[in-house]
Amino acid sequence: MTDQGSYVEPSYERDTRYITTRITADGRDGYPVEPGRYRLVVARACPWANRAIIVRRLLGLEDALSMGICGPVHDKRSWTFDLDPGGVDPVLGIPRIQDAYFKRDPGYPRGITVPAIVDIPTGAVVTNDFPQMTLDLSTEWREHHREGAPDLYPEAWRDEIDEMARVNYTEVNNGVYRCGFAGTQEAYDAAYDRLWRRLDWLEDHLATRRYLVGDHITEADVRLFTTLVRFDPVYHGHFKCNRVKLIELPNLWGYARDLFQTPGFGDTVDFTHIKAHYYVVHRDINPTGVVPAGPDLSGWAAEHGRADLGGSPFGDGTPPGPPREVVPPEHNPVLELLP
Amino acid sequence: MTDQGSYVEPSYERDTRYITTRITADGRDGYPVEPGRYRLVVARACPWANRAIIVRRLLGLEDALSMGICGPVHDKRSWTFDLDPGGVDPVLGIPRIQDAYFKRDPGYPRGITVPAIVDIPTGAVVTNDFPQMTLDLSTEWREHHREGAPDLYPEAWRDEIDEMARVNYTEVNNGVYRCGFAGTQEAYDAAYDRLWRRLDWLEDHLATRRYLVGDHITEADVRLFTTLVRFDPVYHGHFKCNRVKLIELPNLWGYARDLFQTPGFGDTVDFTHIKAHYYVVHRDINPTGVVPAGPDLSGWAAEHGRADLGGSPFGDGTPPGPPREVVPPEHNPVLELLP
Repeated sequence: MTDQGSYVEPSYERDTRYITTRITADGRDGYPVEPGRYRLVVARACPWANRAIIVRRLLGLEDALSMGICGPVHDKRSWTFDLDPGGVDPVLGIPRIQDAYFKRDPGYPRGITVPAIVDIPTGAVVTNDFPQMTLDLSTEWREHHREGAPDLYPEAWRDEIDEMARVNYTEVNNGVYRCGFAGTQEAYDAAYDRLWRRLDWLEDHLATRRYLVGDHITEADVRLFTTLVRFDPVYHGHFKCNRVKLIELPNLWGYARDLFQTPGFGDTVDFTHIKAHYYVVHRDINPTGVVPAGPDLSGWAAEHGRADLGGSPFGDGTPPGPPREVVPPEHNPVLELLP
Repeated sequence: MTDQGSYVEPSYERDTRYITTRITADGRDGYPVEPGRYRLVVARACPWANRAIIVRRLLGLEDALSMGICGPVHDKRSWTFDLDPGGVDPVLGIPRIQDAYFKRDPGYPRGITVPAIVDIPTGAVVTNDFPQMTLDLSTEWREHHREGAPDLYPEAWRDEIDEMARVNYTEVNNGVYRCGFAGTQEAYDAAYDRLWRRLDWLEDHLATRRYLVGDHITEADVRLFTTLVRFDPVYHGHFKCNRVKLIELPNLWGYARDLFQTPGFGDTVDFTHIKAHYYVVHRDINPTGVVPAGPDLSGWAAEHGRADLGGSPFGDGTPPGPPREVVPPEHNPVLELLP
C-alpha cells in the first residue's frame, strides 16, 4: 500500500476501495491467466505486498508472473522504481507505479498502492485488491504452480481461513496502524487494547498448534507473518504497540521464527527496506526521519522447537527452491545465520 | 532538567552551565547547611531530579530538607507546581520554579531546571548543579542524616565513583538523549554506537559485581539507576535506543531490579509521570503527544537473584523506612507486586 497525506487523524481509517478486477482462469473480467502477460509490482517494505511475494514464491509462479520491485521510500504520490537502473522498471518502462494506475484510469482518485498487478501489453493496472490477489494466485493460477506447490487455500479449511484472516486483518494487520496513526490519546488507548486482546488470543491459540488453521501453512499464516516480522523493528516503537516485544510472546515468537526459517518466508524479508519505509515516510510521527539502528535481529535464527506440535509446513508438497529475486544479505543478516 | 526549545539539532549538546553555589556545613558560599531552611524542588519525571529524591530518602534527610514536587509536563519556560492545590507550592508560594530562578537573577538566561534547591527565606534558587547537589547531601549534610544512613560516597572509593559516574554520564545518562535528539542519521548512528558500547561494558562489569563500585550502594548506582528505570518505558522507543530492551540484558536488568526493590529506589519512581513527561513535552519527536500504554512493567517485581554476588545494599547501615512522599500506586503498579 502507500501512505498518502496525513495519517494522524483522531481515529485512523484505511481506504479499502481497491480495483477489484480479477485475473481468472476463465478470463471473465477480461484478464485471463496467461503466463508472461502480467507483472506483479511490489515493495519489499510493504506488509501487504510481502504477502504476494511470499505466495508467488511458495507456489513457484516466478516464470508465469514476473515481479517489479519498488524502493522503500516513496513520495506522497507514488512508489517508484528507484532500485532499477535509470529508475525505470525494465519491463513496464515506467518510473512510477502511478503511471500504470493512470493508464488504467487517467483520473484515478484513490491510493496508488502496492501490490498491484499490471497488464504488460497495455501497461495498465489490472488489480490492486491485495486480499483477493493472493487467493487468486492459489486458485486461478493453479495450472502454472510448480511441482510440489502447497495448497495455501484448501477447500476444506476455507471458512476457517477466511474467518481467521478477517479478524487478524481488522485487529492485527491493520490494528498496528490504528495504534500508530491515532491522533488522540483516547483513539490510541482503544486501538492498543484491541490489538493486544487479539495478540493474546493468538498467543493462546498457537500454544498447541503449529499453524493457524489445519496442519500446514495456509494463506492465514502468510497474512499474519508479514505483520509479525515487522513488529519489533517497526510497530513496537514507531507505532507504540509496546506492551511487549514479539520476542516476549513465546508462542507467537516461536511461530514467527518457524515461518521465517521456512523457505519462501524469511528470504523475502528486507529489514532495511522495512525500517527505511516506515521511519522515513511517516514524517507526521517521526519528523526527523531518523531510522533506528535496532533491534538486534539475531534471535530470528534461533531454533523454534515447534516441529513437535505436528503437521508439516507444505502438507503433501515440498519447499520452494532458492529465491529468484534475492534480498541483499546486508538487508537481512539473519539469513546467513540459518542452518 | 527541563527541555527547552527545539532539541532536534544535527548533534545534541546539553547546556551544562548550572548555578554552582554550594550549601555547605561551613557556609562558605553564604548558604550554610541548616535544617528547615531549604526546599528541594524536583519532578519525579526527571532522571536528574530522581537522583536527589533517592539520595535524600536513603540518607533520611526528609526532616532537614523539605521537597516540592512539580508535575510531569512543563511548557517551554518552566516546570510548574500543578500537582499542588491551587497550582502553588505550599512552602514557596509560587506556581512556577522559574519564579525562584528569577528571584536569584531577574534576567536568568539559562535552562530552568530541576532539581533545584531554593532558600526558603529569600525564595531564591541556591543551586541547580545536580551532580554536586547529591554529593553535598552525602558529605555536607552528614550531621542531619538518619541513624543507619549508608555512606553513598565513601572516601576510599571516591576516585572510582567519580570516574564511573563521569563515563556513565557522557555515555549513558546523557547518551540516551544524544540518540533521541539526533537530527541527522549520522549523528544518531554515532550516538547509538557510543551508548551501546558503554552498556555492553556495564553488562560485563555487573556480571560478577552486585554494585558498580565497592560492595554496597553508592552515588554511582543512584546515577545509573535513574536512567535504567526509564530505559524501556521511554528511551528504547522514544529515543530509539532500541538494540535491545533493558530486560534483554541479564546483568543490567538484574542489577536494575535489585535496586528497584531496595527501599529508596523503586518507591521514588512514578512511571506515569516519566512517560507523560517525555512523550508530551518532546513534540519535536512525538508530534501527536500520544503516550504509549506499554511497556508491561510487572517484570520489575521478579526475583533478581543477585544477593549471591556478595556485599550488602547499605554497607554497615540500614534501609530507610517507608517513603514520606508516596508515589500514587496507580503510577507505579510494581510496588504492590513486591514482597
